[in-house]
Amino acid sequence: MSYSQEDTICAIATAQGGAIGVIRVSGPLAIAHTSAIFKCAKVGKRLEDCQPYSLTYGHITDGTEIVDEVMVSLFKAPHSYTGEDSTEIACHGSPYILQRVIQLLISQGCRLAQPGEYTQRAFLNGKMDLSQAEAVADLIASTSAATHRLAMNQMRGGFSKQLATLRDELLKFTSLIELELDFSDHEDLEFADRKELHELANHIEQVIAKLVDSFEVGNAIKRGVPVAIIGETNVGKSTLLNALLCEDRAIVSEISGTTRDVIEDTINIQGITFRFIDTAGIRQTSDVIENMGIERTFQQIDQASIVLWMLDATCALRQYNDLQAQILPHCEGKQLILVYNKEDLASALPSPSIACEHIAISAKRGTHLDELKQLLVQCAHLPEISQADVIVTNARHHEALTHALEAIQRVQQGMDMGISGDFLAQDIRECIHHLSDIVGEVTTDDTLQFIFKHFCVGK
Amino acid sequence: MSYSQEDTICAIATAQGGAIGVIRVSGPLAIAHTSAIFKCAKVGKRLEDCQPYSLTYGHITDGTEIVDEVMVSLFKAPHSYTGEDSTEIACHGSPYILQRVIQLLISQGCRLAQPGEYTQRAFLNGKMDLSQAEAVADLIASTSAATHRLAMNQMRGGFSKQLATLRDELLKFTSLIELELDFSDHEDLEFADRKELHELANHIEQVIAKLVDSFEVGNAIKRGVPVAIIGETNVGKSTLLNALLCEDRAIVSEISGTTRDVIEDTINIQGITFRFIDTAGIRQTSDVIENMGIERTFQQIDQASIVLWMLDATCALRQYNDLQAQILPHCEGKQLILVYNKEDLASALPSPSIACEHIAISAKRGTHLDELKQLLVQCAHLPEISQADVIVTNARHHEALTHALEAIQRVQQGMDMGISGDFLAQDIRECIHHLSDIVGEVTTDDTLQFIFKHFCVGK
Repeated sequence: MSYSQEDTICAIATAQGGAIGVIRVSGPLAIAHTSAIFKCAKVGKRLEDCQPYSLTYGHITDGTEIVDEVMVSLFKAPHSYTGEDSTEIACHGSPYILQRVIQLLISQGCRLAQPGEYTQRAFLNGKMDLSQAEAVADLIASTSAATHRLAMNQMRGGFSKQLATLRDELLKFTSLIELELDFSDHEDLEFADRKELHELANHIEQVIAKLVDSFEVGNAIKRGVPVAIIGETNVGKSTLLNALLCEDRAIVSEISGTTRDVIEDTINIQGITFRFIDTAGIRQTSDVIENMGIERTFQQIDQASIVLWMLDATCALRQYNDLQAQILPHCEGKQLILVYNKEDLASALPSPSIACEHIAISAKRGTHLDELKQLLVQCAHLPEISQADVIVTNARHHEALTHALEAIQRVQQGMDMGISGDFLAQDIRECIHHLSDIVGEVTTDDTLQFIFKHFCVGK
Repeated sequence: MSYSQEDTICAIATAQGGAIGVIRVSGPLAIAHTSAIFKCAKVGKRLEDCQPYSLTYGHITDGTEIVDEVMVSLFKAPHSYTGEDSTEIACHGSPYILQRVIQLLISQGCRLAQPGEYTQRAFLNGKMDLSQAEAVADLIASTSAATHRLAMNQMRGGFSKQLATLRDELLKFTSLIELELDFSDHEDLEFADRKELHELANHIEQVIAKLVDSFEVGNAIKRGVPVAIIGETNVGKSTLLNALLCEDRAIVSEISGTTRDVIEDTINIQGITFRFIDTAGIRQTSDVIENMGIERTFQQIDQASIVLWMLDATCALRQYNDLQAQILPHCEGKQLILVYNKEDLASALPSPSIACEHIAISAKRGTHLDELKQLLVQCAHLPEISQADVIVTNARHHEALTHALEAIQRVQQGMDMGISGDFLAQDIRECIHHLSDIVGEVTTDDTLQFIFKHFCVGK
């Protein structure tokens, strides 16, 4: 279900409980509806006559009683966040007052805004493209310097600019190809210099591939570095997870209330977020059902970039030898850390037969956990991010870029095989389509709804 | 410890977690400090050159990176909330961003504001008197139409105006008395018409007495109608309280985070707040220690305006007869409700020998609780409040008014006894002093600190 842009919408844009609460009103009748419940402190002054970008002091009234003394900010289309006429009413932060003001606005004809509807209108009115709009939610949810930097660059159009350059190059490519097609009767003519076209395609392919690859880092920064804790049952996986989580409970609870849907078990260590993936215990078995569970565990290992293989220090060598043939193949290209748990119960620790990080701890007693955290930070391998870096953090963008990459690779293969220009042009158009999808030029209503429903109300 | 008003202060004025976060800056260097970390979107424009009551779009920068795109509101002394130069920076509501902006302001030389310091400055700069300043906190904490009305009237000076009228009358009284003193050598002269003085004193006494009396209603509206649940041990007092609280848990949790220090067990029924007073079980005993506990219970009954006397329905008559001699004298002038609990276990219920409300319930099974709530609403006897009513809700004001009442009553007695004018003048000055205390004309630093420390930061 989509909502009319002709409606004037209102919402409380601040969280409950502060000194100040702000109500946003936007749409064709925003100023009229606000004016109808507002009385300027200066006698005879009307909100309709106020300048854009001005503040006016006065009170909200229900006709009989004064609801609050407020400050009204006024914006006129197109010079506002949404691109529409807008007001912002700054009230005292009482939930009772804010609700009353919203009720009065609704009685004037306003509609309560949908989640993200202000930003959606900003997008629909051309104030920002879709990737910038998506960055607004990321910016509000940002809790670290790295997530803040990525969101800020994206919101300010750093990503959009790179995509625009790519599309310009692709359009140039198309026009050259199409010029060739127009003169295809003249077999001896080859307008598009195939060498130049090859170089252009290679360049485009490289840029898109780099963006696709950046998602691993972007996703690790935004959602956390994925860490799988594996090992036999009863080796202390849950105890370790609880020990790590418990100390950082405050940080974990800080990110609740952001726009993320699911709070996974994430821990912030030295500014890096780690996201822990629950796995079932692994052991050698012929039980079909149990083997299916273990198969799932291996799939989860494949998603991780760090694998914590926990071994019971009292029988570490036996456990290692039992499972190494199953586990090690899944750890290629990942950071493997052997964790000898229950160090307090073991007399001596084996040294691993493969070259990987290893550490002895006691999850129960909490010994050497700081060293383990240090090791995790070391293994995270996150690059320093600057605000100028374009890094993909959004799964939707990653998917579109992957499709764009496939399309440009088909163009490259086609050129190698010497296929005709009209087939090449089709793949180039598909590549352009996927890039346009990211900035919202070809996006469907369904996509928009999916994106904005994850926003908070008031944004 | 008091803080310099020369400092420029900053604070986050909105609660954590919304779409928008607002930072307030106030003091002599508010505009300079904000300008130092702000870059207008319009090239070459400086915040210092902007008009008061204007909004300016731009971004906050730390010199290297962009921290956020923001809208800055500008106010110039004395036309601001505090009466000082002020700015308000509206950011995206990310806790990370808000903290960064605060850090940048502090690095410029701002100091983090104390709780209520903006309102305290507004008071010190003569933008509002002390009773109005106190109403700001009440307004923000208001959760019902009645608390909102009382706070709004007080904030807009309704109470102050009544006090000003009273003080004018007292000053007139004093001047008449002092004129008489100046000519006291002429024993035959009596400038002040004693009959007129009597009438004036009576009028003043009546107005103050009415204000003092209004505190009972004001306090019941603000803090809740005090209800004592009493009865023998094991009669089901806690079960009833939990049953009542449980259904309204949402409403109870709604008022956490307001300026109140202690969340008592309060329940909102049909817009009226009831505050339940815990009491120990009562029984006849010769144990000295236990009797001290029971004595305390009776003191708590004295604070209540409604007494729920719970009786076990299976032995209600015995319990009633055992305790009536102890309990009934404490219930005079209060609403007594006999609650026969465990109705499901009793075959028949006694009818009370005194005229009072009574009801049979089962706290455990939750039967007839709605009827009990209805009875509580009926017994609350709260008057309809309009925004024009002056009702004292503040314990500090009540105390000052009580002292003022005592002083004016001494004046009346003195006049009856025909004592000399200079003694009368002393009591009148004391009466004026207490009234001035309410609006903050003679208030000490300690009082100010006590008042504002209960405010939230950012207000």
